[in-house]
Amino acid sequence: MSPVRIALFGLGPIGRAAGALALSRANLEIVGAVDVDPRLVGLDLGRCLEAGRDLGIRVTADADEMLAVVRPEVVLHCTASSIERVAGQLRAIVGRGAAVVSTCEELSFPWLDDHPEVAELDELARALGVAVLGTGVNPGFAMDTVPLLLSGAAQRIDHVSVSRVQDAAARRLPLQRKVGVGISVEEFEARRATIGHVGLRESLHLLAGGLGWRLERTERTLEPVIATAPATFGETVVDAGRVLGVHEQVRGFVEGRERIVLDLRMYAGAPDPHDAVEIEGVPDLRLRVDGLHGDLCTAAVAVNCVAAVLRARPGVLTMLDVPLVSASLGPLQPRPTAGPTSP
Amino acid sequence: MSPVRIALFGLGPIGRAAGALALSRANLEIVGAVDVDPRLVGLDLGRCLEAGRDLGIRVTADADEMLAVVRPEVVLHCTASSIERVAGQLRAIVGRGAAVVSTCEELSFPWLDDHPEVAELDELARALGVAVLGTGVNPGFAMDTVPLLLSGAAQRIDHVSVSRVQDAAARRLPLQRKVGVGISVEEFEARRATIGHVGLRESLHLLAGGLGWRLERTERTLEPVIATAPATFGETVVDAGRVLGVHEQVRGFVEGRERIVLDLRMYAGAPDPHDAVEIEGVPDLRLRVDGLHGDLCTAAVAVNCVAAVLRARPGVLTMLDVPLVSASLGPLQPRPTAGPTSP
Repeated sequence: MSPVRIALFGLGPIGRAAGALALSRANLEIVGAVDVDPRLVGLDLGRCLEAGRDLGIRVTADADEMLAVVRPEVVLHCTASSIERVAGQLRAIVGRGAAVVSTCEELSFPWLDDHPEVAELDELARALGVAVLGTGVNPGFAMDTVPLLLSGAAQRIDHVSVSRVQDAAARRLPLQRKVGVGISVEEFEARRATIGHVGLRESLHLLAGGLGWRLERTERTLEPVIATAPATFGETVVDAGRVLGVHEQVRGFVEGRERIVLDLRMYAGAPDPHDAVEIEGVPDLRLRVDGLHGDLCTAAVAVNCVAAVLRARPGVLTMLDVPLVSASLGPLQPRPTAGPTSP
Repeated sequence: MSPVRIALFGLGPIGRAAGALALSRANLEIVGAVDVDPRLVGLDLGRCLEAGRDLGIRVTADADEMLAVVRPEVVLHCTASSIERVAGQLRAIVGRGAAVVSTCEELSFPWLDDHPEVAELDELARALGVAVLGTGVNPGFAMDTVPLLLSGAAQRIDHVSVSRVQDAAARRLPLQRKVGVGISVEEFEARRATIGHVGLRESLHLLAGGLGWRLERTERTLEPVIATAPATFGETVVDAGRVLGVHEQVRGFVEGRERIVLDLRMYAGAPDPHDAVEIEGVPDLRLRVDGLHGDLCTAAVAVNCVAAVLRARPGVLTMLDVPLVSASLGPLQPRPTAGPTSP
């Protein structure tokens, strides 16, 4: 069996981590790489991925040409969180007949805001026989796919509660900024519209969709977690009274009752990082996972979904539509991972 | 959307539990029921399921006639553990163009012993465009599907350890007999070939298959768990020195190294019943589930797989091939469960 030919679209932290992981997998072959950053364009991909060797693949800003020339089977797409921003990129990829695994958060449940681009992309993907999947560890795994699988063992479900605690200090800098580590409470309030995690709403709808519940109403709260004493995280110092990160909740209501709550705490120094699911029903089910590190696992879920999109039906899909995602290590053990994904 | 027309094939404890659950789901409609037990044939299904009302469906021993007349879309098949024993039943169902969700343990990984019946059934199912799936909570969920999903968040996997502890005293009587509750150690040794849990080997191969590992060698150990003091479980008394149940392990080896171990403890009085998965790799991942009760959850997984087999490709499938299984409660909350599945 020859390896699956993949291309990397977007070489930010997540794209590079996914690329380095793909490089370690004998069942994948990287054949192209796209990024618009002028500091990367023209470099050998091996340097971007800190692979310790040249790969003979130059990073290009010309996605169309790369897609036309090297014709990847699957594109690992890691550029932006909003469907509006990535729709043109996805159309170009799908238009060349390649399947997509994207870490675009909004794409994990793309039917939420009636984006006309999604319906068009779905039509194109069906016409060309390829699948487009938005995924990652969150949204895409920890707060939607995992509770959904657990629900598979339930006879009746009265309520689902999902919580995720992540220590933002253990995460990459862009994420720390996204959750406001070190800013003042006033700045938090001023930036409220853009701060926090993109994807909780998507997870809520994915979860409700998988359970067959039509949400009548949703609620969202977002609060800063504030340092009560000065705290030091590597080179970052957060004074007392300043922001450590966020506590975000979304709730879904069916027939007037709260049925789902997703609770996300992502702040520097958060104790006991873990994921938990509680299903109240018949029987009551409780699940806890330790180790779902946001950066490492987003790269892992994305790369592990390559096999799933190849086996899935064509169209714009969610994690509800693809076969069970597993590590898909192929007949050989993956080569040891080098570069930025190593712990 | 009209409900999916299902039939029950086999009305033992699991078949009845699955039937009662199906009855509670607005998105399913039971249209037929088959069993060979003369005490059941001719009864209204509502009585078998303790539904508190007649359903207008007579239990019949004539599967072919039921299938031909009521034409179910999906058959919930709960009769026996061995492929050899169920192959004829499955051929009859598939031959009438119905999909199958079966709790036959060997069917959860049917490719294990090169059963010629499976290849034939696969061909027939593909020809008639229906899916055949073997599932349940174990095999089919706790010790294979759940660890596989967790592996989806892993970059690299060095070793997978799965353990399940079930208190046999909380399970139905046939299961207690199957694990030898109350028998002598001599009887355990004499019955060694038939005692224990059917499915651990299937879970091992399902797990290895999903990870892309080719097992070179497997090992199995089965030991009685012996009462050190007299113990009482409801009406069952187990004297000191007699058997409380089993401790079973299977191990899978790849390239000379143990890569997977499944550890099952199923005995009367087992403390802290739970499921656990440990993945050693990048990152290390740990999962624990509480509440996966064998009888309640086997019915749940089977019924929850109805939606999945309808959306899956045709053929004899495993849990690796079907879309994510979730509770699929449909647009309405299920009606409250009545009968033997209530806790």
